[in-house]
Amino acid sequence: MAPLHEIAHLGHVELLTPHPQQSLWFFTHVLGLTENGRDGDSVYLRTWDDYEHHSLKLTAHHTSGIRRTALRACSEEALHRRVAALQQAGRGIGWIDGDPGIGPTYLFTDPDGHEFELYWESQWYQAPDELRPSLKNQPQAYPSTGFSVRRLDHVNFLAQQTLPNGDFLRETLGAEATEQIQLDDGTIAAQWLHFNNKSYDIVYTNDWTGSRGRLHHIAFATDTREDILRAADICLENDVFIETGPHKHAIQQTFFLYVYEPGGNRIELCNPLTRLVLAPDWRTITWTEAERAKGQAWGLKTIESFHTHGTPPVDQPH
Amino acid sequence: MAPLHEIAHLGHVELLTPHPQQSLWFFTHVLGLTENGRDGDSVYLRTWDDYEHHSLKLTAHHTSGIRRTALRACSEEALHRRVAALQQAGRGIGWIDGDPGIGPTYLFTDPDGHEFELYWESQWYQAPDELRPSLKNQPQAYPSTGFSVRRLDHVNFLAQQTLPNGDFLRETLGAEATEQIQLDDGTIAAQWLHFNNKSYDIVYTNDWTGSRGRLHHIAFATDTREDILRAADICLENDVFIETGPHKHAIQQTFFLYVYEPGGNRIELCNPLTRLVLAPDWRTITWTEAERAKGQAWGLKTIESFHTHGTPPVDQPH
Amino acid sequence: MAPLHEIAHLGHVELLTPHPQQSLWFFTHVLGLTENGRDGDSVYLRTWDDYEHHSLKLTAHHTSGIRRTALRACSEEALHRRVAALQQAGRGIGWIDGDPGIGPTYLFTDPDGHEFELYWESQWYQAPDELRPSLKNQPQAYPSTGFSVRRLDHVNFLAQQTLPNGDFLRETLGAEATEQIQLDDGTIAAQWLHFNNKSYDIVYTNDWTGSRGRLHHIAFATDTREDILRAADICLENDVFIETGPHKHAIQQTFFLYVYEPGGNRIELCNPLTRLVLAPDWRTITWTEAERAKGQAWGLKTIESFHTHGTPPVDQPH
Amino acid sequence: MAPLHEIAHLGHVELLTPHPQQSLWFFTHVLGLTENGRDGDSVYLRTWDDYEHHSLKLTAHHTSGIRRTALRACSEEALHRRVAALQQAGRGIGWIDGDPGIGPTYLFTDPDGHEFELYWESQWYQAPDELRPSLKNQPQAYPSTGFSVRRLDHVNFLAQQTLPNGDFLRETLGAEATEQIQLDDGTIAAQWLHFNNKSYDIVYTNDWTGSRGRLHHIAFATDTREDILRAADICLENDVFIETGPHKHAIQQTFFLYVYEPGGNRIELCNPLTRLVLAPDWRTITWTEAERAKGQAWGLKTIESFHTHGTPPVDQPH
Repeated sequence: MAPLHEIAHLGHVELLTPHPQQSLWFFTHVLGLTENGRDGDSVYLRTWDDYEHHSLKLTAHHTSGIRRTALRACSEEALHRRVAALQQAGRGIGWIDGDPGIGPTYLFTDPDGHEFELYWESQWYQAPDELRPSLKNQPQAYPSTGFSVRRLDHVNFLAQQTLPNGDFLRETLGAEATEQIQLDDGTIAAQWLHFNNKSYDIVYTNDWTGSRGRLHHIAFATDTREDILRAADICLENDVFIETGPHKHAIQQTFFLYVYEPGGNRIELCNPLTRLVLAPDWRTITWTEAERAKGQAWGLKTIESFHTHGTPPVDQPH
Repeated sequence: MAPLHEIAHLGHVELLTPHPQQSLWFFTHVLGLTENGRDGDSVYLRTWDDYEHHSLKLTAHHTSGIRRTALRACSEEALHRRVAALQQAGRGIGWIDGDPGIGPTYLFTDPDGHEFELYWESQWYQAPDELRPSLKNQPQAYPSTGFSVRRLDHVNFLAQQTLPNGDFLRETLGAEATEQIQLDDGTIAAQWLHFNNKSYDIVYTNDWTGSRGRLHHIAFATDTREDILRAADICLENDVFIETGPHKHAIQQTFFLYVYEPGGNRIELCNPLTRLVLAPDWRTITWTEAERAKGQAWGLKTIESFHTHGTPPVDQPH
Repeated sequence: MAPLHEIAHLGHVELLTPHPQQSLWFFTHVLGLTENGRDGDSVYLRTWDDYEHHSLKLTAHHTSGIRRTALRACSEEALHRRVAALQQAGRGIGWIDGDPGIGPTYLFTDPDGHEFELYWESQWYQAPDELRPSLKNQPQAYPSTGFSVRRLDHVNFLAQQTLPNGDFLRETLGAEATEQIQLDDGTIAAQWLHFNNKSYDIVYTNDWTGSRGRLHHIAFATDTREDILRAADICLENDVFIETGPHKHAIQQTFFLYVYEPGGNRIELCNPLTRLVLAPDWRTITWTEAERAKGQAWGLKTIESFHTHGTPPVDQPH
Repeated sequence: MAPLHEIAHLGHVELLTPHPQQSLWFFTHVLGLTENGRDGDSVYLRTWDDYEHHSLKLTAHHTSGIRRTALRACSEEALHRRVAALQQAGRGIGWIDGDPGIGPTYLFTDPDGHEFELYWESQWYQAPDELRPSLKNQPQAYPSTGFSVRRLDHVNFLAQQTLPNGDFLRETLGAEATEQIQLDDGTIAAQWLHFNNKSYDIVYTNDWTGSRGRLHHIAFATDTREDILRAADICLENDVFIETGPHKHAIQQTFFLYVYEPGGNRIELCNPLTRLVLAPDWRTITWTEAERAKGQAWGLKTIESFHTHGTPPVDQPH
């Protein structure tokens, strides 16, 4: 079934860091995000092609992890229909005032406990003079510092069980699974879900610790694969830990680099080339345990820490 | 207003050529398309990432130009709702059997007379052994010959008047204009329309000859800008006429190369990087006559033939 | 004849600017050079892969242009042999103390009057802690700001007559012409000379004003063509004037972008891919007037200002 | 000490394969080499930017490995001076007629027993009509099939002991070591030698089996890193075994992909970006055992087979 098209796209995420100064340095100096205001323990940061107020809310906290993931509805009506569905599913928390630039926001959790917010109203970003772009079809000047990521691309959640969460997003929000991993015992070990033409927006991966509510990684899209190779050199020079890559995922075929930001959260730099899922009747691609074991597209073995590092850290395994 | 999301994507086009052998050589050897059957004067050709039967139907004809443009609906119901709207608009022609791999097809024309077809049923492509891809989330093996374009990306029509055609696609099919050019006298000289996250699928440009039903170009998307630079070298070595580029459009920011295939039709190789229009409330960007006169993004003047070459050729100007 | 191999490479150049603050901003913020000391009206700047003290000496002056071009000899003995040849040619000026980091330096001029310096002793650059590279086979950390050019690549001089200058570098320093343009009347209109495997280090182009000692451009090499495309965007955002490009030269096949730095000097960003002249018996490639008229490799017409803009400006034409 | 500059460059190599048909398919269809004649069990193959007759002589044999490595002298005189030095070193075999296109050739072996040939006369390649390039400064048309490697880049020999072989090339041919690995016990485990501005042409690596005369790999240079990413996809689709990569070597900073051709020989696709060793007083970079253990530049662990696979295969370890 085609996506319902009531969720427009991933909006922004709130990321927690126990090392706020260093994390901020990473996101601005290395990743190339632009600060757009502060509020208490949080700094609002934006990618240069984000038309909204912010792409990332970076919040000082006693530990790492993700606090909240925001989705934008396609319209006022779509928002209210989705809120009704969330309430019916019993996972709604309620309305709150939105972050700066964001209107009324409905809070809910997925079955695993990750907090989400859903909103429609969004004030388009107006760049100040020094960030005014040369081309009027772009919200902000292309930065000349760091990786210059174009957008927040997706969130990969760790969950006690993938399937109920994927089902929840399908049933309440109209997400569709484009790809998934199914173990030999039938377990869905991971699922890639999308709302529109991007081949994935939200991913669930089974948490080896059996914990709930944790984060595997958030990802930012670069314009080119060359940007990712350049990013690797910049990480190397700035003592940013590179976990694995650059390489090409077999699943979704994304070109990737995984690094840890100073707060401990895993950050993916991803480039999908021009791949889109355009077929309205896309059939979920299911990868077997054996296929997953073959590693990445060009033969790189999946690194061990990919199955042991999540945030916040927990005593493991359960 | 957000797109209606009843049209999934551009399906395929039928291109006419007075030099079928040479055009076929161009599309297979130079562009890297794969033949997938023949029928009378037509050869069906596909890009490697097309999940459907064909991306291009190349038909021998006494002259050049585009015969038909196919759009796929998002569902059976969407198809019928759009057909009703087309009938109501008085532009429907009627149902025909579809091309190979395509189900019942509804024929209509835009106000300028370009033929379109709309369909829902589409048989997913099954690659024969020698074209079987290594990765199961891809319909066909990535070719090692020519430019290896990923998909048919968009069609740019010449029309006597842009605006009625853009309005027609908006009203009947739910297209939205993402960008446009408005002359000082108020005329909309060109309009870029999209159905989903791609920033454009169909473009109308005012025909300087006052003719109807002509083609400015069709475009194929490459994975990278490097692919386009490599394409330029391959064109150079194969005596394929390069009209202009590589460069970056200011409008839509697409990286481009324009060449003429041996039949005379202009072909664009385009790379949008990872740019998408995700905002459901995107506001049409309007470029003024003065802004258009500034040329391309990095200052290249728009080449004169861009305003004089269309297919089929006509006596000009009126 | 193979190069004599007594000149190792282009060392650094001294560039003059009437707008020293803005030029410095361009070279550090946009181009990504690193400051390495100041002296009077001059700032020393380096590319990240330069093993010597500096690649560019930027000097405040009442006008623009190039003051001096430095070449490094292959050895102490080679230096003295070349100095003897220069003295014999009657073009020597004499020994001076070198710039910071550079030992005894012999000053001379080419027939057109451009000042050169030749030296052997060179103190290898030791990066301070904050610029220490992660890889020990690299002199300085790869910068995360601006274009991150790897090296000063070549100098293109304007000269009243190309040929005597090319001959002079051949006879005194062992340069060889890899390519040249010969007009229909037999005039050598431009000549590309090299000392080693790079396909050119010094270029002479006939000055349309009949002036002596002027500069067409200096060039910095980037690692990739993508770096040049990214550079174009950074120039666009920073109001740096892009004269022409990106495109590929037919002559030498270099991928290029020409911009003007704020002092008015033309700067080329160039990428030769992995092309080298390895043949010891390379035969000078001669391009005819008609071939030159065909423009760049992929058909871009050479921009008019390429034949009218040099530094310093002069009343023209003679 | 600067290189002596009597060896111009690596000419060609003769590679042995027990599967000549499949190897030929690999080198022409996948790698994009062009056949230029046959002789007995050998096929001559060329990269598109080779000005000489051939870059690779592929010979059917009962096993894999490298038979001979050809170097071109800088001049007739340089050839004779180097032959005298080789004779004096007691490693000369004698003069033979050269391969097609190559003049009188002097045969010798390095201390480990690898056969080399040295020559001066070389007939410049004249492309037949169908391979005639569009740009006259290029020997052959750029191919539109396969990886389109520009040149044979280097040879990496396995040797019982690296050091005597490196010393031999230094003393007889004027090679210089740009980088090397030194184990904690003082052993030089590998050495990278160059003759000119390329940072390496010949590499020796200690053979873990204690054998003599074997091959670690030969390498072909691509124009871009993107070419290597594309090559990985083409290998994936053509069932060419990818051993490791793409990644960036810490040593020499080369971007690489290692594959096995069907005959079993390891082939590297390499891209050095625009890195050159220009310093005439370059100091050999020595990497310690600990530094080598850190793996590649961005953290990829060196794959085990890199230390166990050489050609021809031998019973191992000694």
